[in-house]
Amino acid sequence: MLIWLKNYRRDLLAGDIGAGIIVAMMLIPQGMAYAIVAGLPPVTGLYASILPPIAYALFGSSMVQSVGPMAITSLMISTSLAPLAPPGSALSVVLAAQMALIAGALLFVSGIFRLGFVASFLSRPVMSGFTTGAALLITGGQLEPLVGGPLAAMHGPSTIIGLTSLLALWLAKQYLSKGLSALGLSTRLAETLAKLAPVFVLVVATTAVALLDLTQVGVKIVGEIPAGMPAITLLVSGEHWRPLFMPALLIAFMIFLSSQAAAQSLAHRRGERIITNHELLGLGAANLASAVSGGFPVTGSISRSAVNYTAGANTPLASVISAALIVLALSVPTSWVSWLPLPALAATIILAVLGMIDFSTLKDSWRYDRGDAAALLATTAGVLLVGVEQGVILGVVLSLATVIWRASRPHIAVIGRIPGSEHFRNVERHQVETLSDVLAVRVDADLFFGNVDAVVSHLELLLKARTAAHRPTRHVLLVMSAVSLIDTTGLYALREINDSLRAEQITLHLAEVKGPVMDRLQHSDLVGKQLSGQIFLSTADAFRALQGEDSWSI
Amino acid sequence: MLIWLKNYRRDLLAGDIGAGIIVAMMLIPQGMAYAIVAGLPPVTGLYASILPPIAYALFGSSMVQSVGPMAITSLMISTSLAPLAPPGSALSVVLAAQMALIAGALLFVSGIFRLGFVASFLSRPVMSGFTTGAALLITGGQLEPLVGGPLAAMHGPSTIIGLTSLLALWLAKQYLSKGLSALGLSTRLAETLAKLAPVFVLVVATTAVALLDLTQVGVKIVGEIPAGMPAITLLVSGEHWRPLFMPALLIAFMIFLSSQAAAQSLAHRRGERIITNHELLGLGAANLASAVSGGFPVTGSISRSAVNYTAGANTPLASVISAALIVLALSVPTSWVSWLPLPALAATIILAVLGMIDFSTLKDSWRYDRGDAAALLATTAGVLLVGVEQGVILGVVLSLATVIWRASRPHIAVIGRIPGSEHFRNVERHQVETLSDVLAVRVDADLFFGNVDAVVSHLELLLKARTAAHRPTRHVLLVMSAVSLIDTTGLYALREINDSLRAEQITLHLAEVKGPVMDRLQHSDLVGKQLSGQIFLSTADAFRALQGEDSWSI
Repeated sequence: MLIWLKNYRRDLLAGDIGAGIIVAMMLIPQGMAYAIVAGLPPVTGLYASILPPIAYALFGSSMVQSVGPMAITSLMISTSLAPLAPPGSALSVVLAAQMALIAGALLFVSGIFRLGFVASFLSRPVMSGFTTGAALLITGGQLEPLVGGPLAAMHGPSTIIGLTSLLALWLAKQYLSKGLSALGLSTRLAETLAKLAPVFVLVVATTAVALLDLTQVGVKIVGEIPAGMPAITLLVSGEHWRPLFMPALLIAFMIFLSSQAAAQSLAHRRGERIITNHELLGLGAANLASAVSGGFPVTGSISRSAVNYTAGANTPLASVISAALIVLALSVPTSWVSWLPLPALAATIILAVLGMIDFSTLKDSWRYDRGDAAALLATTAGVLLVGVEQGVILGVVLSLATVIWRASRPHIAVIGRIPGSEHFRNVERHQVETLSDVLAVRVDADLFFGNVDAVVSHLELLLKARTAAHRPTRHVLLVMSAVSLIDTTGLYALREINDSLRAEQITLHLAEVKGPVMDRLQHSDLVGKQLSGQIFLSTADAFRALQGEDSWSI
Repeated sequence: MLIWLKNYRRDLLAGDIGAGIIVAMMLIPQGMAYAIVAGLPPVTGLYASILPPIAYALFGSSMVQSVGPMAITSLMISTSLAPLAPPGSALSVVLAAQMALIAGALLFVSGIFRLGFVASFLSRPVMSGFTTGAALLITGGQLEPLVGGPLAAMHGPSTIIGLTSLLALWLAKQYLSKGLSALGLSTRLAETLAKLAPVFVLVVATTAVALLDLTQVGVKIVGEIPAGMPAITLLVSGEHWRPLFMPALLIAFMIFLSSQAAAQSLAHRRGERIITNHELLGLGAANLASAVSGGFPVTGSISRSAVNYTAGANTPLASVISAALIVLALSVPTSWVSWLPLPALAATIILAVLGMIDFSTLKDSWRYDRGDAAALLATTAGVLLVGVEQGVILGVVLSLATVIWRASRPHIAVIGRIPGSEHFRNVERHQVETLSDVLAVRVDADLFFGNVDAVVSHLELLLKARTAAHRPTRHVLLVMSAVSLIDTTGLYALREINDSLRAEQITLHLAEVKGPVMDRLQHSDLVGKQLSGQIFLSTADAFRALQGEDSWSI
């Protein structure tokens, strides 16, 4: 905790201050924008950007993570609160804080119990499919604000502001960084300044709207932002714990996954290590802090953290400086912000989330593994057609279903001896010799509940085929060289195989059982008591013992 | 389909008729009892025992499965319908049929799409924990009927009937089979007759209640059973599809799992093979048939199927005969059944479900694998404390969580050469020699989304340790002999390892990549384009190529 502060060196300060300023400039419009996406008053997005990054700095392990509002979590907040409170209402603010409280508590407790492995519940393609679906949903939700009304009845001045902003942002994204480099700026500075394009666009749009008083012609603006600090208080609604719990759990999960993705990609670049369970504590603390200071669920943003890193951040001090600057912005008169036109803000949101749409993972997985590609597409479809929360659950189910589906088709090879050697190989791929009454089988998978049915029925098929070919079997040898784990269900399956073989006067032997697997089997009745045959160290030993009167044949 | 009928031989008939009669005798009280557990009128349990077994016979692959009402599915029906309709009401009957319709359609479609692998979503310990929890819940629900009122205000005559029945059933279970054997009956006949003890107890109790007219003193009876056939019609409530869908999905899942367990254990004994996808079709057809004939969700019952088998059933004709006998029972005046006392019926239910409580799996898994034991206990607790439907979901989540949890701690060994050989082994377990600037690592697990984070961070730790020990690394060799699968997430992880090693001037090589894994990697950019090093056939080849100026040292 706070190791970075104890080891703080003066030469890190300049980078942290520079990054702190730049991230604050990003955070002010972004915080308000994502509050709007969440269906909350814009100022709550600023509140959610003050204490959370400071709380994260106390526990988190990433040096450059920028914790605060984020597009996908905001979308999840809006869909979760929609049935409970009208958007922008006082109750919605209370419930959003309450969600942050539940999510924060879940994250913090998960950190204490070291449940970081839950980050491994989603495959990368499924995460990509989820993000793409969420980005499309957010974009869809911003189309009306962009054009100042329903698409069938666009509002002229709003549409002009919205589309001009969108065009300017798109041009900036495509060319600004290169252009600034060409002007002689360092690549890093050019990239950082280019990321501030939304700020410049918003300043221009705000100025135009204010000077021309465009609200008169019906352009909608952010409206009054109350000046001053958020009250530090915990407002909760007594009766909404139950309906908020499941959404808060799902948001907590996505908070963790998003933040992990951001932290890890930057840690790779900085040669640092992320400690997953510290991340959980940091995110938990950040959300608890958000809950008591008028905010809503927050997480590490991959894009903002990248800007923080590129702008030179060395430690979480950069985030603390950003927070201080937002406090400063709230302490001065905030009326200038009130002129910020919603169509321009919608344009910045759309351009930001369209950048999250990821075709390359779809392309890669389509080429590499159709099952993963199908899971990706199904998750996107689920988010779009059913909903973002259901999309999270669907994603987890699909990720895990692919595991069980693959496990349900284990690779099982009948093996024989390569003549003149002690090597044993698949009879279908190599010219090998076998003993007539021994069926030797290598199972190329762990034995666990996901594949035992498949293993048992494969074995039955092999035995039936031998019987049909008039090759009676006296011994079955299971070669366990590729088995690193046998769970309780796998143990039962071995016992059932043993029993049903015994009923047909066939002896079951094992060979090449790995050390840890053997250690565990000693705790069962299979070894020593039930097993009808023996356990051999090597396949060669087993064949020597089982050869008897028999002779090898190809 | 109906292969058993095409190949029917006359000598199978006697066994089928005998079993058909005995199962019908079991099914009449059991059907009514499980209808009561489901919160439905008793006669619906008889309706659910007529068409479903016939429909199952058309598609199913088990020869001795007895399809009909079952305790756990009835419990699930009752908890699902409780918020929607009062127990025993006309609406509850319609909704129960509607659940059977949805569940049947889901099962049938799953069979068409060959989704039989979903049976592998629950580990055996978790299934045991679920069954135990459900059995306890059902027992709890039958205590009031057993004593004719709340436990604090037991009804004397009812309590006497209930407890006497319970005692008689317990004694029969313990001693009847042995006693009949001692009298000279064959073991098989003795066991079969002993299973009919509940029928005898109920006949005695019914006769006593009717002769003594015990309803006058307040003993509750089953009441009138309408004579005649169920109407073949599809009554559905237009508005309840949505709330019924999730419960029906969960019931469909448990229908499939229970039936699989019953079918497989008997198929092992009979030396037959169960075709999982045919089971889905058979169960789907059975539930659709139940839906159109006034029934409710049905499944294969492990205990009743065992009686069917022991009583000599050879083909599904036995079940068809049972169905015909139930039709017959409904065609004659049914007033005698109306005197069946509920306390005695409760006693038969309690004794039946207490038999489902399974301590041996808990004991085995406690000794063998604490993680599995914890999942078992958590599932039981979930069923008891939260609910039976949530218990199913919890069970799936816990089963899959153990997979991911185990995957998140993969076994990774640094390997070296056994001097004077071409064998490579774990440096921690064997006296081996290594090359100073080569880190050779064997990953003993498939590379998939569940463990890539763990693999990557383990590798980072190993590299850091070498750097800290002033042993710079120039080559990392991943030995893939134990990797049978790399999914898309695993592919990305390899790419990231490759890129971050390259940034530190370390070359990444692979060795002993299995055929199917290599085939798939050819479809990616890793092989040929991105990989900084080479792919070697064997670890020995790799070390020969990487040795360079270096020399081996221990």
